[in-house]
Amino acid sequence: MIRIHRAGPREKIYFRPEQVKAAIITCGGLCPGLNDVIRHIVITLEIYGVKNIVGIPFGYKGFSDKDLTEMPLSRKVVQNIHLSGGSLLGVSRGGPSVSEIVDSMEERGINMLFVLGGNGTHAGANAIHNECRKRKMKVAVVGVPKTIDNDILHMDKTFGFDTAVEEAQRAINSAYIEAHSAYHGIGIVKLMGRNSGFIAMQASLASGQVDICLIPEVPFNIHGPNGVLKHLKYLIETKGSAVICVAEGAGQNLLEKTNAKDASGNTILGDFGVHIQQETKKYFKEVSMPVDVKYIDPTYMIRAVRANASDGILCTVLGQNAVHGAFAGYSGITVGIINTHYAYLPIPEVIAYPKSVDPNSRMWHRCLTSTGQPDFI
Amino acid sequence: MIRIHRAGPREKIYFRPEQVKAAIITCGGLCPGLNDVIRHIVITLEIYGVKNIVGIPFGYKGFSDKDLTEMPLSRKVVQNIHLSGGSLLGVSRGGPSVSEIVDSMEERGINMLFVLGGNGTHAGANAIHNECRKRKMKVAVVGVPKTIDNDILHMDKTFGFDTAVEEAQRAINSAYIEAHSAYHGIGIVKLMGRNSGFIAMQASLASGQVDICLIPEVPFNIHGPNGVLKHLKYLIETKGSAVICVAEGAGQNLLEKTNAKDASGNTILGDFGVHIQQETKKYFKEVSMPVDVKYIDPTYMIRAVRANASDGILCTVLGQNAVHGAFAGYSGITVGIINTHYAYLPIPEVIAYPKSVDPNSRMWHRCLTSTGQPDFI
Amino acid sequence: MIRIHRAGPREKIYFRPEQVKAAIITCGGLCPGLNDVIRHIVITLEIYGVKNIVGIPFGYKGFSDKDLTEMPLSRKVVQNIHLSGGSLLGVSRGGPSVSEIVDSMEERGINMLFVLGGNGTHAGANAIHNECRKRKMKVAVVGVPKTIDNDILHMDKTFGFDTAVEEAQRAINSAYIEAHSAYHGIGIVKLMGRNSGFIAMQASLASGQVDICLIPEVPFNIHGPNGVLKHLKYLIETKGSAVICVAEGAGQNLLEKTNAKDASGNTILGDFGVHIQQETKKYFKEVSMPVDVKYIDPTYMIRAVRANASDGILCTVLGQNAVHGAFAGYSGITVGIINTHYAYLPIPEVIAYPKSVDPNSRMWHRCLTSTGQPDFI
Amino acid sequence: MIRIHRAGPREKIYFRPEQVKAAIITCGGLCPGLNDVIRHIVITLEIYGVKNIVGIPFGYKGFSDKDLTEMPLSRKVVQNIHLSGGSLLGVSRGGPSVSEIVDSMEERGINMLFVLGGNGTHAGANAIHNECRKRKMKVAVVGVPKTIDNDILHMDKTFGFDTAVEEAQRAINSAYIEAHSAYHGIGIVKLMGRNSGFIAMQASLASGQVDICLIPEVPFNIHGPNGVLKHLKYLIETKGSAVICVAEGAGQNLLEKTNAKDASGNTILGDFGVHIQQETKKYFKEVSMPVDVKYIDPTYMIRAVRANASDGILCTVLGQNAVHGAFAGYSGITVGIINTHYAYLPIPEVIAYPKSVDPNSRMWHRCLTSTGQPDFI
Repeated sequence: MIRIHRAGPREKIYFRPEQVKAAIITCGGLCPGLNDVIRHIVITLEIYGVKNIVGIPFGYKGFSDKDLTEMPLSRKVVQNIHLSGGSLLGVSRGGPSVSEIVDSMEERGINMLFVLGGNGTHAGANAIHNECRKRKMKVAVVGVPKTIDNDILHMDKTFGFDTAVEEAQRAINSAYIEAHSAYHGIGIVKLMGRNSGFIAMQASLASGQVDICLIPEVPFNIHGPNGVLKHLKYLIETKGSAVICVAEGAGQNLLEKTNAKDASGNTILGDFGVHIQQETKKYFKEVSMPVDVKYIDPTYMIRAVRANASDGILCTVLGQNAVHGAFAGYSGITVGIINTHYAYLPIPEVIAYPKSVDPNSRMWHRCLTSTGQPDFI
Repeated sequence: MIRIHRAGPREKIYFRPEQVKAAIITCGGLCPGLNDVIRHIVITLEIYGVKNIVGIPFGYKGFSDKDLTEMPLSRKVVQNIHLSGGSLLGVSRGGPSVSEIVDSMEERGINMLFVLGGNGTHAGANAIHNECRKRKMKVAVVGVPKTIDNDILHMDKTFGFDTAVEEAQRAINSAYIEAHSAYHGIGIVKLMGRNSGFIAMQASLASGQVDICLIPEVPFNIHGPNGVLKHLKYLIETKGSAVICVAEGAGQNLLEKTNAKDASGNTILGDFGVHIQQETKKYFKEVSMPVDVKYIDPTYMIRAVRANASDGILCTVLGQNAVHGAFAGYSGITVGIINTHYAYLPIPEVIAYPKSVDPNSRMWHRCLTSTGQPDFI
Repeated sequence: MIRIHRAGPREKIYFRPEQVKAAIITCGGLCPGLNDVIRHIVITLEIYGVKNIVGIPFGYKGFSDKDLTEMPLSRKVVQNIHLSGGSLLGVSRGGPSVSEIVDSMEERGINMLFVLGGNGTHAGANAIHNECRKRKMKVAVVGVPKTIDNDILHMDKTFGFDTAVEEAQRAINSAYIEAHSAYHGIGIVKLMGRNSGFIAMQASLASGQVDICLIPEVPFNIHGPNGVLKHLKYLIETKGSAVICVAEGAGQNLLEKTNAKDASGNTILGDFGVHIQQETKKYFKEVSMPVDVKYIDPTYMIRAVRANASDGILCTVLGQNAVHGAFAGYSGITVGIINTHYAYLPIPEVIAYPKSVDPNSRMWHRCLTSTGQPDFI
Repeated sequence: MIRIHRAGPREKIYFRPEQVKAAIITCGGLCPGLNDVIRHIVITLEIYGVKNIVGIPFGYKGFSDKDLTEMPLSRKVVQNIHLSGGSLLGVSRGGPSVSEIVDSMEERGINMLFVLGGNGTHAGANAIHNECRKRKMKVAVVGVPKTIDNDILHMDKTFGFDTAVEEAQRAINSAYIEAHSAYHGIGIVKLMGRNSGFIAMQASLASGQVDICLIPEVPFNIHGPNGVLKHLKYLIETKGSAVICVAEGAGQNLLEKTNAKDASGNTILGDFGVHIQQETKKYFKEVSMPVDVKYIDPTYMIRAVRANASDGILCTVLGQNAVHGAFAGYSGITVGIINTHYAYLPIPEVIAYPKSVDPNSRMWHRCLTSTGQPDFI
């Protein structure tokens, strides 16, 4: 059972708008829709009557770096920011300690903090919330989950995911055109998805052009009689070309381990896309079949686009509800869409582990039907 | 209570694939995704082992017009049709009588009929189903709801709607740019929505650029102290420009009645978009305020685009399930997504009346918050 | 013979940058690239060392309307304006008298004026230049021709034209899809081109989907044995569908005359697009052939898009050269690309009459070959 | 002096259409517009009355590989192929010897050969032409230059180039957004251009978002007081972010030599994009300045898109003129646009060496003005 509250405005509000200083930060990597959420937090705060709204530049780092100054925000500033991708405030990974952040918040007089970020960022937001409670500060800390991978527990969908699936079509279609126009052409597209293959699965399904989809949740062999390469050979022999879509985090067990971590504390993954490209070339050389392999990694081109209409609506409602939640006096919560309803959840509920594709789900089976791929085990 | 069955493949199938002759027809106006659904019906039929698949050209008319010949369909034919808009088979409104259609089906040996169309088309499909039953023909008639307006009862969403909302952004943004770049500029965009304002509501919400959204479900006055024009004057005075988004069927009570009907039996609506444009010009002339009004009707440019990724997935699953339903022996049913699950429903359940926007729903209130518009009553 | 000077920076400059107050105005209708030109005028002025740069809002009107204040411009302000369509400064038609404008310039201390507009606007710019000379004001007045129709004398191409041809593809393809998917479908697209058919000709040629292209320069009959409608009937009988592309100003002799003029002094044209749509419906009713006619007018959706890459480069060079010209001491000139070279011309050289499509040119014949249309005389 | 003939239809034709068997081949890598040229060759051949038209699959290889069968071509087959990228016929590098190709042509009865490809392919076409002359075969061999790099001698522009510059905007804008949204963000975009930097130069100029543009024609240092990295440091210190655009073949002297060649005989270049990315990371580590480097290689996503409108027109005219040239009895020629006129040239005239950017040209200086970059020497 999870503790969950229906999102939306409340009759009683916990803050007097004229006493609010609200701050917004964006952490981690880029994701379509960041500017939309920022925009709607600002607009909704203004509707409540809040005048003092600032953006903290470059994520948590902005709390400690003296050279980075707060950016005053208003409807005028944010009016058209949703028309371009990226984050008006800038993003970064890592940052100062929780107590330094809360010191900075006290000093600046911030009593509403809106945090857009992934699991690590939310863990930070929760720690900030707890530290504020400890210090008896009357502060609302509200998260908005930002993960292009769509891997937040309990949530139907996180913003940017739909846009990513849409934009991935461009890369998949390019791979299809390249593969199809070449003699024995093989197109490989690597998509985002460190722990979960939602983007790769949905993008493959939507395209109708993918022959093999590989995701972290479903184990597979590359070599051997049931391996990916054997099937690839079959596809080349029968269709003349093939398109493979791999999620970033697929097949990690097949790569040499690395213990490196990035500034957000995420393990730096081995690059499976490059690996399968190399193995493919090697294999077909061994079996003396000429192939023409093209590898496409559209990651940064997907992350940086503006949100599509569907995500635009999602971001609108998330931004509005984040503000409603803060004014209702919630803190240490995050906002999301759960079973088609917008809801508030305590942050700990969502950060335990990433949501992943269920290999027994209908959606994965639809993907298999669509690609026509066998089990690779 | 509605009778509803979970969609998907069944253990026992009711038809022997080698004895099936399947036909597909598309009726009514264009809608993004028609080719995607056709494609997946064909692909899924082939997976079942069906070899005899045809398209009936130009909707029900294709059953009676001797000059129109069946189009043989196969994976090869449909491979890339989803990459362009429109319908491979052609669409039309109206057609021969039910008994003529069933005569033609008998003659052609069709025992699976997949019908893509709106309410009128589904009523026809149900009548065909009943006539087949009466004649003791072992035929499966399966509908796939096609309404860009998203106004089918019980269904979360119909294919093409998401794409329409996305594509409408282009028109709204043009209206915004035109209005914003002009002295006292007013941009008016008319979107689809004969009986329900889903497209106008969602497109307005997604854009963040609409000041006034008018839909059929919510009554309003144009004139008078609370009327649209008064608010428009206020917007021009305070913001210098304004954008209005109207659903095709809005404000019909304000237009002179016409009793004309099109070949599908739909009442031909008065053109409210043109009406409000004229009233706006007249009003501002009366109050001696110069305005620059630009009117945009992107209807055909929206209808004719290809499906976006989200609709691509919806169409994939609908096409797959339509075939599963037919093989399971269902007839007189339609397939859709209901409370996030794909399901079969008896056709009569969905055609009683169109689904409409609930003026008390959160979504409409979010739209009002976003536009900032008052009640116009 | 025309007086023409190669555009570009000069060794000697006529103004001391720190004494320059430069103003930019945009007049007439929207055209893709306005923001690009504004941006590069500002950036180039800053490179010269000019600090005092302003935008006059809403064209010449901004010189007289006391409520409209100058907009200070700098690299920071214009950095990303080229990413959206429209004009940062706003446009309008008409305005105060030449002497009022020059009074206002004196009062404001403007000694460089950059005027973006069409023929009428350039005539105004030339009159301003002459008035300044008369008053012995040391002022540079430099025009940049803005006409989406590409109808400026001597110039290879004006900015926005290439983008318009590109964006028109969307409308033509929609018309093609609608026509092709309908039973006896006829798609009609009206494109810009008051006096000249460059957009319609090039857009038809690029699309490969147009059957009949009608432009102002080439006379044609609608009715009669060689008329457009007869050929249309032939197309429906043989191909089943047809696409017509008409320039706004085509067939004006077939419409009832109107003497109305807009604020720029342009004759308000009869709407030939609507006319041919009506005549088409009437004709096929008379010959008892059912047809399905769809009419698309994408004008505002084309005008409001941002410039494409090709126009982006053109605007860059025009903006740079406009500033070089002013600093070189030229006044009463305009800048353009002539025989592949950028050049300055005295304004009177270019405003005598509009450039038009030569019906004997290879390009028009290529268009005829592509559409396959006969002479309609 | 080059031998050049105005392109276009001739009064006398050298072949009787009913005796023509025309073949089309596409060689080398993908380039936007291949399908447009194929389409217009086929359409124009049909207008001349030719019925026997085939496509040879996968370039010259299709002449020798017994498993690859000719593809019959007609207006019906090619009607909509220009709406998708790639090549309907498939491309490949290398192939059989000239005499094998001519043997195959004799056997198949091909007397018109249209060859779409780059320098190497054209050299092949010329050798085929000479071999045919030697054997007294009455054959027309006509080339259409296909190089996305725009590096064919004498030609204003080759098809696909304009589209590539347009599509590159997407990658540059992503790099800009990523760089701008990151703390000390550096975006690096590698674009096509083995020997010449036209794409990188024009794409940088069009974008207005590039700070450093590096091309093969202009020498530069990475390290040292005038090196790229020093300037990059300056940009980070002053602007906070930077965008670099490098042509594929830039800085080859700074990489370790490799003598590898691909099947077309082109030297396999060292990857300078990857090199500068690594050097950048290393340098900023050394100077202890944290930077966030993002590297984007959009090559395959650019090559595979469909032609834009401007290239659509170019391809139309090239395709028409290729056929006119063959019917006029020319052989061993290629067709192109030279000083704004379409013309035929003997193949040897254009393949001597690649066209390159003139570092003293106005266009390169405009690019430098736009980026603001110094000499890196």
